[in-house]
Amino acid sequence: MSDAAMTLEGWYALHDFRSIDWTAWKAADDEERAVALDELQAFMKEWTTAEEAGQGSSTVYTVVGQKADFVMFHLRETLEDLKHLENEFNKTTFAKYTTKSYSYVSVVELSNYLGKDGGDPYQNPEIMARLKPILPKNRYICFYPMNKKRDLNDNWYMLSMEERRGMMRSHGMIGRSYAGKVKQIITGSVGLDDWEWGVTLFSDDALQFKKLVYEMRFDEVSARYGEFGSFYVGSLLDEGSFEEMLKL
Amino acid sequence: MSDAAMTLEGWYALHDFRSIDWTAWKAADDEERAVALDELQAFMKEWTTAEEAGQGSSTVYTVVGQKADFVMFHLRETLEDLKHLENEFNKTTFAKYTTKSYSYVSVVELSNYLGKDGGDPYQNPEIMARLKPILPKNRYICFYPMNKKRDLNDNWYMLSMEERRGMMRSHGMIGRSYAGKVKQIITGSVGLDDWEWGVTLFSDDALQFKKLVYEMRFDEVSARYGEFGSFYVGSLLDEGSFEEMLKL
Amino acid sequence: MSDAAMTLEGWYALHDFRSIDWTAWKAADDEERAVALDELQAFMKEWTTAEEAGQGSSTVYTVVGQKADFVMFHLRETLEDLKHLENEFNKTTFAKYTTKSYSYVSVVELSNYLGKDGGDPYQNPEIMARLKPILPKNRYICFYPMNKKRDLNDNWYMLSMEERRGMMRSHGMIGRSYAGKVKQIITGSVGLDDWEWGVTLFSDDALQFKKLVYEMRFDEVSARYGEFGSFYVGSLLDEGSFEEMLKL
Amino acid sequence: MSDAAMTLEGWYALHDFRSIDWTAWKAADDEERAVALDELQAFMKEWTTAEEAGQGSSTVYTVVGQKADFVMFHLRETLEDLKHLENEFNKTTFAKYTTKSYSYVSVVELSNYLGKDGGDPYQNPEIMARLKPILPKNRYICFYPMNKKRDLNDNWYMLSMEERRGMMRSHGMIGRSYAGKVKQIITGSVGLDDWEWGVTLFSDDALQFKKLVYEMRFDEVSARYGEFGSFYVGSLLDEGSFEEMLKL
Amino acid sequence: MSDAAMTLEGWYALHDFRSIDWTAWKAADDEERAVALDELQAFMKEWTTAEEAGQGSSTVYTVVGQKADFVMFHLRETLEDLKHLENEFNKTTFAKYTTKSYSYVSVVELSNYLGKDGGDPYQNPEIMARLKPILPKNRYICFYPMNKKRDLNDNWYMLSMEERRGMMRSHGMIGRSYAGKVKQIITGSVGLDDWEWGVTLFSDDALQFKKLVYEMRFDEVSARYGEFGSFYVGSLLDEGSFEEMLKL
Repeated sequence: MSDAAMTLEGWYALHDFRSIDWTAWKAADDEERAVALDELQAFMKEWTTAEEAGQGSSTVYTVVGQKADFVMFHLRETLEDLKHLENEFNKTTFAKYTTKSYSYVSVVELSNYLGKDGGDPYQNPEIMARLKPILPKNRYICFYPMNKKRDLNDNWYMLSMEERRGMMRSHGMIGRSYAGKVKQIITGSVGLDDWEWGVTLFSDDALQFKKLVYEMRFDEVSARYGEFGSFYVGSLLDEGSFEEMLKL
Repeated sequence: MSDAAMTLEGWYALHDFRSIDWTAWKAADDEERAVALDELQAFMKEWTTAEEAGQGSSTVYTVVGQKADFVMFHLRETLEDLKHLENEFNKTTFAKYTTKSYSYVSVVELSNYLGKDGGDPYQNPEIMARLKPILPKNRYICFYPMNKKRDLNDNWYMLSMEERRGMMRSHGMIGRSYAGKVKQIITGSVGLDDWEWGVTLFSDDALQFKKLVYEMRFDEVSARYGEFGSFYVGSLLDEGSFEEMLKL
Repeated sequence: MSDAAMTLEGWYALHDFRSIDWTAWKAADDEERAVALDELQAFMKEWTTAEEAGQGSSTVYTVVGQKADFVMFHLRETLEDLKHLENEFNKTTFAKYTTKSYSYVSVVELSNYLGKDGGDPYQNPEIMARLKPILPKNRYICFYPMNKKRDLNDNWYMLSMEERRGMMRSHGMIGRSYAGKVKQIITGSVGLDDWEWGVTLFSDDALQFKKLVYEMRFDEVSARYGEFGSFYVGSLLDEGSFEEMLKL
Repeated sequence: MSDAAMTLEGWYALHDFRSIDWTAWKAADDEERAVALDELQAFMKEWTTAEEAGQGSSTVYTVVGQKADFVMFHLRETLEDLKHLENEFNKTTFAKYTTKSYSYVSVVELSNYLGKDGGDPYQNPEIMARLKPILPKNRYICFYPMNKKRDLNDNWYMLSMEERRGMMRSHGMIGRSYAGKVKQIITGSVGLDDWEWGVTLFSDDALQFKKLVYEMRFDEVSARYGEFGSFYVGSLLDEGSFEEMLKL
Repeated sequence: MSDAAMTLEGWYALHDFRSIDWTAWKAADDEERAVALDELQAFMKEWTTAEEAGQGSSTVYTVVGQKADFVMFHLRETLEDLKHLENEFNKTTFAKYTTKSYSYVSVVELSNYLGKDGGDPYQNPEIMARLKPILPKNRYICFYPMNKKRDLNDNWYMLSMEERRGMMRSHGMIGRSYAGKVKQIITGSVGLDDWEWGVTLFSDDALQFKKLVYEMRFDEVSARYGEFGSFYVGSLLDEGSFEEMLKL
């Protein structure tokens, strides 16, 4: 059986990074800002509705530094659902005070390097809970996209399944040693966006992102074969802290 | 006979990616928006006319994420026809509410690695239907440009015709295993745009894009010699869903 | 004699790529547009005057896709002449409705790999006609900049003159097989712009650009040593078709 | 014990580079400018308060050249503190006359290649003074981000701990030979931003930056394994010199 | 003695590339333009004052093509002096009609590969005249930044001093063969800007830039170890020709 056939996929994912146009926000009058905040709250309320209906999950975090001011991370059944969320946000009054920073389109994925016990995995509740997860509410988020290298002698895709499986196993053991400290959601994006995977980490201690990623970097999978995009890090926003951030 | 001489070409192709300027669109009044939508519909009507006259084919899909909001994919007889379409769109009132995102210029191509049965291929109706195709109406589209690598020992263009033909054959077999699930249109862009080929995939199941591209990545042609640009994915728009997307 | 000493140079060249700001153009009133078109025509008239005086040659083509809308290609005696043309265009009313897209500064060059028959080449009318050419009026143009690679074992500049000469000879034979179908003007830009050469092709059949560049890519000079920038392709504009393109 | 486990971390760091929008600043009237300067001073006053409370340290330097006009360098207990500082600056009237240029998110780090004498380093006052430092007031600053290479045979992360320790020791000796001339703060950014480390140097003689970085470049750690981002250099600003810079 | 210790440095250097915002310039009225030109002249007058006081040297050249319209090249005693010049320009009315294009920060450098005759070089008038030069008034300028490569087997910084010295000697001989035709000022930027060196060439014949740089490219120092940034070329501006360029 080929590698691709053994991958499991769940909800589609959109990471939607935005920056605040502070000059426009400060130039708005109180009423405009109140309308904008109301529409933002209403937009975020719909996330709860979707989550309660089992149709997806959404969350929002700040992003530290100039790359963006916040990221909305959405999981939904279809690509149309994700584009609809993007459009709904763009149609809010609040969106007028933001600019686009970066986005990532992918789908929740469980790796084919995991052992299997037979049976239809899509009927397995434990697997389905990982393919269609409710997003955690940890204090911090970290997102980065990545590839496996195809560079002359360092070519992941020219290795045998056995070699790849062996390296992924030791890689996974590092991940497991962070259990309880860091949760991760792997989303696949081959054929969907510019990198092969997106990695989203959640933790109550941002230092754990650094320790986990740094430790993995010495592991052959990352050391020889990992190729990384930009890293985004930030902290959880809720209705209150989002309004607080926007208060002038 | 050289490689180049054996390539067959059909209609020229333009992938025209655009983003919606939502702030301007929301700032427009109802009448302006109605005019814009009327002109957009009229512009899209002309596509049907061209298609019915056998002069080309056009379609439009959303693009998920911030790279663009929609892509118009046009096939026409000449480069002048494509530039004319670009200009006609730019002259519409609707264009004022959009910004340019990305474009790709190429020409429908059938590979010289296919076997041949003699006779003038341009007189062969089956081949002509592939060189001047009516674009499918599948639910999803995927577009990406690509090169064959020329990197030290991984240099596609230094391989013999036999080596290339052998690898392309196994590559094609993966593609054929997706028959009925994914349709593909290969367009060549050597000498026309920044990559050597554009790949446009159509499917009713977006996951098939991921599975096909991922499976191919383990194939030596992609693993050692494939170099990929940005991936764009989205869903079919028609008159109704395009208006729906723009409704405030 | 060193390589550099054997290169022949003629007129300086400027490829000046511009995009039309359609929103501004549509927002202008009829009178403003008429003034803009008059000044554009007057600017283009001066090209004819320069050409008739043997002081240079200029032409303008559309560019298909979003990279640009048109390219003005100027050949003149000095860099000051080229900057003056740039400035004169920028001072026209029409320029207000355009934005800068890309430019390339170089000088018409004849390669030192050609055989020589003695005598001062700058007194040879045939050579001078190639160094200071009147630009052709073919239906299509193709422009791309390129380097010769200096990448570890694939280093053109570490080869001996004999090796380079041998490869360039077979390279030239491909070019010659397109005689009558494609005209090319090579301009050198070492020390003048970001790539080492600019290649400008002219043809009445745009497919010939693809066939020529693709066939050459299998040739060792391109396959191992060629490094290519962006490709621009478009069709000839004259006073009438330029106005037609701008008509609303 | 793994490499990662042996790294010590202190305050989180934000380098916040900004450019002045001189056209807007000159277009403002005297009163607006006075308000802007007052808010800037008040914002900078809070830095002193935080520093006196042992909650962090902040400083501001010009940046020479067009990359930015000034950089605010903040050290604080949490990522939330840093985002709050960013937001507070953005909410000032002065921010309206600036644009974002670049930013870097990291955390003060002491390397695991240093010898250890046992005991909890986080209880060691000397170590804590380096992990939570008061920023120096030297005349010049230099900042650059960097990676250790993972490029085929030049792969830092595939070396043994002993090899890395040996190279870092000789690297550190160069650094120590600049003691008294250059102070450095290393901040780690694996999992936090796009490079693996940020290096911030302080000196009263800007030439020492050049001499130190150039001397290190011949050291194997940098020569074979160092990968460098953009370099930013500038001079110390205080209340007076900042106002002087902005005086029209 | 290490390499770094043997480098001699003189004045700090700023290459400040700017583009003209022609739309804004044409929209200004005659009086605004007159004020702008007066302030530009006054700003340039100060250069003469600084030069006469032995405190630096400044010059201005056009830049051909869209990368910029002109470059101001300043040499001064300190980084603060350079930032002050930048700010003074930005505060002029003329600056409102320009945009930033590119800049480069470096310091005049004499290489440690030159032979030495003992004595304090900073007391040697001949050496000081090269470290703190009055900028020439040649008709043309060429600027490009460059690195020495550190790419696997092509790693300049892993060579021995003897190997580097030998290659630099033959490199210097090419340079010397252009004596009388091309003047060059090498500025070092390790630790100051994104490349390791800036090269500024002056000549009365722009073709000499092409010939010199092309001839050097076959020399092993450039062929194997040279890595080049963007090339900028243009012609000398004085008070009269600058005004002429701006005349509508």
